[in-house]
Amino acid sequence: MEALILEETKKLRLGEFAIEEALGPRDVRITIKTVGICGSDIHYYEMGRIGPFVVEAPMILGHEASGVVTEVGGEVSTLKVGDRVCMEPGIPDPNSRASRLGLYNLDPKVRFWATPPVHGILRPSVVHPADFTFKIPESVTFAEAAMVEPLAVGMQAAKKARIEPGDLAVVMGAGPIGMVTALAALAGGCSHVILTDTQQPKLDLGASLGPVTPVNVAKESLVEIVSAMTGGWGADVVFECSGSAPALAGVFAPLRPGGCAVLVGMPGSPITYDVVGAQIKEARVEHVFRYAHVFPRALALMGSGSIDVKPLVTDTFEFADSIAAFEYAAHLPPTSVKAQITLP
Amino acid sequence: MEALILEETKKLRLGEFAIEEALGPRDVRITIKTVGICGSDIHYYEMGRIGPFVVEAPMILGHEASGVVTEVGGEVSTLKVGDRVCMEPGIPDPNSRASRLGLYNLDPKVRFWATPPVHGILRPSVVHPADFTFKIPESVTFAEAAMVEPLAVGMQAAKKARIEPGDLAVVMGAGPIGMVTALAALAGGCSHVILTDTQQPKLDLGASLGPVTPVNVAKESLVEIVSAMTGGWGADVVFECSGSAPALAGVFAPLRPGGCAVLVGMPGSPITYDVVGAQIKEARVEHVFRYAHVFPRALALMGSGSIDVKPLVTDTFEFADSIAAFEYAAHLPPTSVKAQITLP
Amino acid sequence: MEALILEETKKLRLGEFAIEEALGPRDVRITIKTVGICGSDIHYYEMGRIGPFVVEAPMILGHEASGVVTEVGGEVSTLKVGDRVCMEPGIPDPNSRASRLGLYNLDPKVRFWATPPVHGILRPSVVHPADFTFKIPESVTFAEAAMVEPLAVGMQAAKKARIEPGDLAVVMGAGPIGMVTALAALAGGCSHVILTDTQQPKLDLGASLGPVTPVNVAKESLVEIVSAMTGGWGADVVFECSGSAPALAGVFAPLRPGGCAVLVGMPGSPITYDVVGAQIKEARVEHVFRYAHVFPRALALMGSGSIDVKPLVTDTFEFADSIAAFEYAAHLPPTSVKAQITLP
Amino acid sequence: MEALILEETKKLRLGEFAIEEALGPRDVRITIKTVGICGSDIHYYEMGRIGPFVVEAPMILGHEASGVVTEVGGEVSTLKVGDRVCMEPGIPDPNSRASRLGLYNLDPKVRFWATPPVHGILRPSVVHPADFTFKIPESVTFAEAAMVEPLAVGMQAAKKARIEPGDLAVVMGAGPIGMVTALAALAGGCSHVILTDTQQPKLDLGASLGPVTPVNVAKESLVEIVSAMTGGWGADVVFECSGSAPALAGVFAPLRPGGCAVLVGMPGSPITYDVVGAQIKEARVEHVFRYAHVFPRALALMGSGSIDVKPLVTDTFEFADSIAAFEYAAHLPPTSVKAQITLP
Repeated sequence: MEALILEETKKLRLGEFAIEEALGPRDVRITIKTVGICGSDIHYYEMGRIGPFVVEAPMILGHEASGVVTEVGGEVSTLKVGDRVCMEPGIPDPNSRASRLGLYNLDPKVRFWATPPVHGILRPSVVHPADFTFKIPESVTFAEAAMVEPLAVGMQAAKKARIEPGDLAVVMGAGPIGMVTALAALAGGCSHVILTDTQQPKLDLGASLGPVTPVNVAKESLVEIVSAMTGGWGADVVFECSGSAPALAGVFAPLRPGGCAVLVGMPGSPITYDVVGAQIKEARVEHVFRYAHVFPRALALMGSGSIDVKPLVTDTFEFADSIAAFEYAAHLPPTSVKAQITLP
Repeated sequence: MEALILEETKKLRLGEFAIEEALGPRDVRITIKTVGICGSDIHYYEMGRIGPFVVEAPMILGHEASGVVTEVGGEVSTLKVGDRVCMEPGIPDPNSRASRLGLYNLDPKVRFWATPPVHGILRPSVVHPADFTFKIPESVTFAEAAMVEPLAVGMQAAKKARIEPGDLAVVMGAGPIGMVTALAALAGGCSHVILTDTQQPKLDLGASLGPVTPVNVAKESLVEIVSAMTGGWGADVVFECSGSAPALAGVFAPLRPGGCAVLVGMPGSPITYDVVGAQIKEARVEHVFRYAHVFPRALALMGSGSIDVKPLVTDTFEFADSIAAFEYAAHLPPTSVKAQITLP
Repeated sequence: MEALILEETKKLRLGEFAIEEALGPRDVRITIKTVGICGSDIHYYEMGRIGPFVVEAPMILGHEASGVVTEVGGEVSTLKVGDRVCMEPGIPDPNSRASRLGLYNLDPKVRFWATPPVHGILRPSVVHPADFTFKIPESVTFAEAAMVEPLAVGMQAAKKARIEPGDLAVVMGAGPIGMVTALAALAGGCSHVILTDTQQPKLDLGASLGPVTPVNVAKESLVEIVSAMTGGWGADVVFECSGSAPALAGVFAPLRPGGCAVLVGMPGSPITYDVVGAQIKEARVEHVFRYAHVFPRALALMGSGSIDVKPLVTDTFEFADSIAAFEYAAHLPPTSVKAQITLP
Repeated sequence: MEALILEETKKLRLGEFAIEEALGPRDVRITIKTVGICGSDIHYYEMGRIGPFVVEAPMILGHEASGVVTEVGGEVSTLKVGDRVCMEPGIPDPNSRASRLGLYNLDPKVRFWATPPVHGILRPSVVHPADFTFKIPESVTFAEAAMVEPLAVGMQAAKKARIEPGDLAVVMGAGPIGMVTALAALAGGCSHVILTDTQQPKLDLGASLGPVTPVNVAKESLVEIVSAMTGGWGADVVFECSGSAPALAGVFAPLRPGGCAVLVGMPGSPITYDVVGAQIKEARVEHVFRYAHVFPRALALMGSGSIDVKPLVTDTFEFADSIAAFEYAAHLPPTSVKAQITLP
């Protein structure tokens, strides 16, 4: 089949690739319709590795996908041919110790699309377990459904925060993950989000997403703004989505006593952490690694209109232009959030 | 001052009433603007008692109120003259064991407006602790602000449920508390609410509040509808707001394994409870008694547009017509939810 | 192989029974050493059914077991031949929706020993998944290890209670499940247990298990005793292990504001429940159905000496006397807690 | 009255000090019997300050105390003259926002004994609020009761960890706080504690406290030992009580997926933190600042025999030798844990 293949670092090829996939009794076969380009795809493209995961053989890229079911295994009862779906890209071992506890995202044996040596889905079709394939509400487009994967990270963050209805949240970083975390926080019960970044176009887009106050931390003091908005009390939740060391160093300053910080962004190296600043507030800190159990929840919130990701899909390319799409995404302008590729 | 006084069972008087209130250093004085009529006001009016609380002397009615600050005590720093506010009607002993734990609503020494022998606020002004008086966002009217008190019960229910973003909720009972609970559940992270009642006009109004599916349990099977909507899995949360024995007997049937039932409605007598039905799902059951810490959260969600209570204020009377308002509220038509009284 | 077979209601046979079990790659084969007799075994023996589960063909009884590994499947890395083990009797579908969430005990497809049509383990050997087979600490005997199954119910109750260190607990009912729940509650952080029953010999045995105050509710008032011990505040947790309707009707009376009631005992029919009594304390109610993830935790607490079940093993029979053992257990004297059968 | 006064840095005086304390209606007067010497007392003695708290006037030291009630205020109903008691040294404003939420330890207005400008209790008597004064069980000595204050820090850590019965815990640091945290963790439901330090005498004493495995991290690998004990899975909880930068940098390495790290020790400066190491395990991190609501819980566990602090009281001095006691405590040998001063 035709696929977008990362041959080696900085070398993409759009062309034939031999891949045979048998349909197991609990699997479905899916025609791919839309694929989003993720920062990790770009990272493999440019660097050839992410941490311990090294591209040592040609690998198909892409893991944010939606499509249509074309074949179902004999034991599948939840899906049928023609269903519009999106897919969780990581498949755990259901018998691992982490999976048995419900923490399947923490199973070290997870096989994840476009993480070496597992192929991604920039190709016409894929076979996938029905348990990790989710039907899309009628009102949700393929483009929106391909956003569920990044949105799921924000949903996991919102779940971990254990938001109480009416919480005030700070979201640090207005990149794609900051944006979806802001959406998930608002849909998950926050009354208001204070969104920070140093790039004004990102903040402008973020401010259009709902009750969001943008703070350009290159010019304004987050701590002062939060203090003014809360009578000196602080924010209930701080979602750190930038991965930047200065943001992480200041994560507790805007937090209220007894508040929660959720660390979503992955910094390049260990960071400086203000233990005493966290202690005097008895902060709870949660960490996010991908997601578990949130795809159907994200789809439900999109279906009911509580979450609208359409403003985040800023750029669309055809499959034939996949290589150009990657080039574009590798140098995404600050007015853009997410580039997607549509398949025929 | 002029007030609406319950002289004795079924006997209201609108007239002069001598009441002197000194302003303590942590208090504010408030001119009352709007007061909602609650079922408990009606109950005292018609029965002269609620459980152990008996009206033994003339008592001013009303506890759902908004107003304007006219005077502030010497130690008050959070409010100033002219602030538009709403008030929590129960004042706990801050030194009680329950209050020290943060459970001030469970303090048996709480003094609660219009609960004998404590006077309510259907009168021109009241002195109240600043700690239980909350500034209203600009976009929120006095009518909406007087809805914060009943909404707070729904907020407490939503908080107790520990909603995970995207939960599906059932709300049993489309009276005022069912309505505000549906609003709080949606604002608090639910993707969808299934609202039940036997009166179609209430269901029709409820269905207009957002992603709400009305179910007339006089004609339809709640369990079948939930099962069809969830592939046989069940709802994540069931909020029981009717207080009716048949509803309570069936509270676990539509629930998913590991789900939560929140019992908000107060039945007149002990009810039948399906222990084994709860056990096979390891249901968590939470109970709500008034509320704690949620007034500012309700106001924040109203201010950001996440909760809109305007459709619930169906009837408005002037203070001079207070007695007629009570007569109306005592026989509220099914198309009505909340009657309010506005003061000059 | 030789087995104890329930031929039909009230008819046991100890004799040959043809059963072939293939060893899968993730399984182990175990020689059975000790089997406890559970109330459910007796119930099937006397009634031929429990709720929807009906004995329609001869079935081997027994599900509380310990033994020695004699053979291991090719993919098993956690166990080896000669390991002393005990076994979880319920095997879920790892791919069910409940199992994926970590709630495998709530999977309706669980296959549970000695629950029709699944055979139990009163026989020389069994094949079992390694994931549900747990190595016993050296200091723990086979008799104690066969107690892990009932203890697991108490562990599940203690886990659900979310005990805070130093909690005071009431345990209603001094039968086997009440006893193990008291042990689990104390090991799980409670400072003290108040144990109730109407049979004095059970209370006397319970009082010997640790910091346990026995209360004979036929003669004494639980509420008064709890009130006296807590200055009128109430117990932090009430574990209801009797399944009796009067106990369940009074479950909230001894509870503190904000406390938790865990309903472990299964009443024969729906019971009367004091909703308002629960609401004025905003009680949290948890329900227990078997257990999940607690076998290794129970073994760890037994291994470290925090839980000692030896006093609960009051009667031991040889396998050849199995039928007599069942007769004895069907009419267990109040001085006895658990009868066990040892295999050669 | 006679008192131990810190005149200025490194200058103690045992002598007369004028201090008048009126008894309020909710207060009790207490004769002091035993006072423990805390690291913070030593720190003020040697440095004259801790962070922003500077000794600018002569101040009485000591805050770990037990005694006997000699006078009670008119509204006190929970205590009477002659009661043996211990006292929480921090008194919050009950009306602060943090206190209303139940987080009174996070109230910035807390007045804390021996924290400038508030006097401590190395003196014959003190007046204290009854709400923060707790009756001692009969079996508990004054020496043990004076250990409740440091033990409360360990109790707060154990509470924050939300231990599940049978958890395996690592406690980093075998100083006084590490020791009491190990005791609280075991009493709070842990089956076993792995205690680390670099000083062997501390580890030897720790190993005698219960099911505790000492690990000398100067010679052994904590990660390897935890891995061997848990089949590569990791510890459920890591309590960091050393405040040392290397320990903090490695806090997630021995943790299991989904585990909890509780940061108790206060490092001198911001530390290096392994965000990605925490993310791949989705660790929850809790922080401890003093304690709230745990004194009566600690006393209950001491009264029931679940916690025995006697081995930790290694050195006792008479009040007349207070200055020598401080000299000794300032250079505490590794075989010692806690030095106390007894009053006449």
